Amino acid sequence: MNNVHTISSYLINKLYAHGVRHIFGVPGDYALGIYKELENSRLEVINTCDEQGAGFAADAYARISGLGAICITYCVGGLKVANTTAQAFAEKSPVVVISGAPGINERRKNPLLHHKVRDFDTQLKVFEQLTVATTVLDDPQTACSEIDRVLGAALRYKRPVYIEVPRDMISVPVNPSRPPPETARMSDGNTLQEALHETIDIINAADKPVIIAGVELHRFGLQEMLLRFLDKSNIPVASTILSKSVIVETHPQYLGVYEGAMGREEVREYVESSDCLILLGVFLSDVNLGIFTDHLDLGKSIYVTSEKISIHYHTYEDVEIEDFVRALAEADIRRREDSDIPNPPPPQSPDPVTGNQVTVRYLFQRLNSFLGDDTVVIADPGDAMFAAVDMTIHGAAEFISPAYYTSLGFAVPASLGIQLAKPALRPLVLVGDGAFQMTGMELSTIVRFHLNPIIVVLNNQGYGTERPMVDGRFNDIHLWNYSRIPEILGAGKGFDIRTEDQLENALQEAQKHTDSFCILDVHLDPNDRSLALERLTTTLSKRIGHNN
Amino acid sequence: MNNVHTISSYLINKLYAHGVRHIFGVPGDYALGIYKELENSRLEVINTCDEQGAGFAADAYARISGLGAICITYCVGGLKVANTTAQAFAEKSPVVVISGAPGINERRKNPLLHHKVRDFDTQLKVFEQLTVATTVLDDPQTACSEIDRVLGAALRYKRPVYIEVPRDMISVPVNPSRPPPETARMSDGNTLQEALHETIDIINAADKPVIIAGVELHRFGLQEMLLRFLDKSNIPVASTILSKSVIVETHPQYLGVYEGAMGREEVREYVESSDCLILLGVFLSDVNLGIFTDHLDLGKSIYVTSEKISIHYHTYEDVEIEDFVRALAEADIRRREDSDIPNPPPPQSPDPVTGNQVTVRYLFQRLNSFLGDDTVVIADPGDAMFAAVDMTIHGAAEFISPAYYTSLGFAVPASLGIQLAKPALRPLVLVGDGAFQMTGMELSTIVRFHLNPIIVVLNNQGYGTERPMVDGRFNDIHLWNYSRIPEILGAGKGFDIRTEDQLENALQEAQKHTDSFCILDVHLDPNDRSLALERLTTTLSKRIGHNN
Repeated sequence: MNNVHTISSYLINKLYAHGVRHIFGVPGDYALGIYKELENSRLEVINTCDEQGAGFAADAYARISGLGAICITYCVGGLKVANTTAQAFAEKSPVVVISGAPGINERRKNPLLHHKVRDFDTQLKVFEQLTVATTVLDDPQTACSEIDRVLGAALRYKRPVYIEVPRDMISVPVNPSRPPPETARMSDGNTLQEALHETIDIINAADKPVIIAGVELHRFGLQEMLLRFLDKSNIPVASTILSKSVIVETHPQYLGVYEGAMGREEVREYVESSDCLILLGVFLSDVNLGIFTDHLDLGKSIYVTSEKISIHYHTYEDVEIEDFVRALAEADIRRREDSDIPNPPPPQSPDPVTGNQVTVRYLFQRLNSFLGDDTVVIADPGDAMFAAVDMTIHGAAEFISPAYYTSLGFAVPASLGIQLAKPALRPLVLVGDGAFQMTGMELSTIVRFHLNPIIVVLNNQGYGTERPMVDGRFNDIHLWNYSRIPEILGAGKGFDIRTEDQLENALQEAQKHTDSFCILDVHLDPNDRSLALERLTTTLSKRIGHNN
Repeated sequence: MNNVHTISSYLINKLYAHGVRHIFGVPGDYALGIYKELENSRLEVINTCDEQGAGFAADAYARISGLGAICITYCVGGLKVANTTAQAFAEKSPVVVISGAPGINERRKNPLLHHKVRDFDTQLKVFEQLTVATTVLDDPQTACSEIDRVLGAALRYKRPVYIEVPRDMISVPVNPSRPPPETARMSDGNTLQEALHETIDIINAADKPVIIAGVELHRFGLQEMLLRFLDKSNIPVASTILSKSVIVETHPQYLGVYEGAMGREEVREYVESSDCLILLGVFLSDVNLGIFTDHLDLGKSIYVTSEKISIHYHTYEDVEIEDFVRALAEADIRRREDSDIPNPPPPQSPDPVTGNQVTVRYLFQRLNSFLGDDTVVIADPGDAMFAAVDMTIHGAAEFISPAYYTSLGFAVPASLGIQLAKPALRPLVLVGDGAFQMTGMELSTIVRFHLNPIIVVLNNQGYGTERPMVDGRFNDIHLWNYSRIPEILGAGKGFDIRTEDQLENALQEAQKHTDSFCILDVHLDPNDRSLALERLTTTLSKRIGHNN
């Protein structure tokens, strides 16, 4: 290997150094030069059916491994991932969007190059809205420092960034200066100390403190610190939908998922009767917390996020979440006595009754006992996600769902990203039929790269989450024979499931069939839904802006 | 029907008044109120598998019927159509993007509503880059005039617009004032006269004038005027890829498609040896004109567009293209003698040889003779489009292809839009296998709404257009059994085609099978390509920014 760096080789090496091993995308002529460099690099190129699939896969990859990347062509590729990048922004997933683009010289000479929208910087302006940092690598003098700056922002803020590479710059040699010392993320010492002491005093004085562990603990690598804090303090802990499995769900101090009126009543009561809520890295968003059916009292809360720390009604800025949580884990917190807390009920394996129609409740009970230590559950928004909340996840961070931004069609391509990042895990994908029709054919990519997720299609003949809000023909979809998709793809195993015994048989077969994907088309009554969804839609139907 | 208007009923009525009969989209909770109003209106809701399909369908619908519309939910829906809206912008297709959004009251109270990206106006800011007019209907006092203004801009500029409807405004009553008089699009009289006289003098003095008829003639409804101008002057006319079929291709003065070195050599020679090029509504873009292999001399050109008129090296502004072309059609232009011009060769039906492998050349020869008076050809970018250029289209505006922006995956959902707009036409869709994998499953929507396009998948095992530029494993895709898709969808007829006799049989069957779609999986040698593509990729490979 020679030592001459080009703009693209510098970028590729930096991605590798930050742990990226796979890059997702669809090639296009403005990006072909980068693709060739990628193919000759240590990264593996995963080309998906459509750019949207690449975007969701990279988002999932970033969630589980700390940084994800996509490479696409100018506009016709880049603008197809506007939505997936928006989701990564909203849910703090650090995805590097690398876009090929017209060469700097071409731009001067030719105003009407293909794929151009309005001006040459139209795509850049769109991504300025959807990322925390952008750059166009149009100058070899600054390219290396720009790459460092932008990748640094992705890692710092856990959000997507945008790097545009004009195609005549791809192979331009650069002379990387010594990389700048990592810009240390410094808390202000006095602020940190004051916030910490106030927190310790409040917790130690409280009768019934409760921790709500949010998804930022996972994004910022603080799960170990959380465990230490739990060990030392013996305080009970809940999670949220978005952060479900941030702590192993069999932990003795674990209450379950707190989600207002949507969740288990005992969890709601326990949490809402606390006199000291310790919210660590929680998104206080609507779907994540049961669509405002929660009654969390900020006047009793210590609310720690990557942006600021709020104690009751005052705030501390310039305190890094890592510093604060680490200090808390090591602080002088008094240990509580063991007390009766409402742990989640252990999974029960129901006995299948031959000929019994599968219900949503039965399906999720059965799936709950099906989960193994190597299962990662990926839930698409909709009842797939709401019903999944009551499953018991064995490992840490092995439940993935876009519970805040809630973009349909995430789960199947996400399983691609997850299994490439963690080949030891087998994804169990829970997806509605409407969402499956958006991106489910990325099973094609899953076959190509020899992965083996189990896909459960919750087939209730349309947009079941919407029917209780406002129903109409627009909530119907054309019905597919999902179990026959293996015939199109020449791989995989399909199951058409209506009864409990058919489900039992399919799960047992799926466990054995590890060569490729399995798809379970589970026919459900269109009016059957989980209890959580029942509660949610009743609340939501009050505010859809239409009286009927 | 009562006379109380709401914001949404006013909007829906205006769309209807402008000729919109179908609206595409995917419902989502912020848009459900609008969907309910749409279902109760005279518009038919066409919900697609994914928003991307809706965007492409509406673009095609707008191209053929003058205005198209999509309705989607906030961010998770809207940002999925960023790319299709960009294409509509780039190629001048007037699509109205209607997005549901959080209510004005919700925004005040709740900062973390689901689907939000950065700020509540993130989606608006993205669409400001991709449209000619935007509005948020947050005020009943101005809602009607805002709707008028924005729809007016779509019709005026033939480009997409964006209308955001907060969900608490959907049913708010409005009192529409008398609509303002249509803002007449006025040319400056003196400028028009001077430009016209100069043009007439140049044309009458020229030895060998040639017209190149561009796509704006179709967008601005000037095809009738073009025919009058041709009749009167007897000047020969060529089209471009983007405007192919703007004039019936059997017209005696028609030369064919001018596309530089990519096209028929006789057309190139004839056009480039002209001493007076009359470019009417042409996009001087790269792919549209053979990737800069053209040698059009602007010093000999009269170049008329909706933005300005250029004669040789000076320009006239404030002249509307409609006024100018109409005046030209009525002007005192001397009539030319008939001369020998290189008309396109008439289609020849080749005799199939049993067992002969189908080649690209054979396929397109055969398809050319297959076209009927009711066939609309829809070509996806790639060799599907380049090879299709030499087909002879019977009707006017019955060839649709995104030849400038060239976004893959357009053709299948476009056929949905086209056939709903013009039920008397039967689409012949030409699509590469890579592009089909992006959006081809919108066949599901085609089945649901009882349409019957014929889909020809050019199956060359990957991104054939890219292989001659830079090849690698990234140009391969997983192979699907496309002919078995009818088994998934429970409708349609599939054909697996390798030989000339199999193609013959399939086309005859497809002609008879009009109940639903037909899909022809035509296996081609991965190294086989049309002559046009051969020339294009040779030119392109010189500038991909990578030496190999």
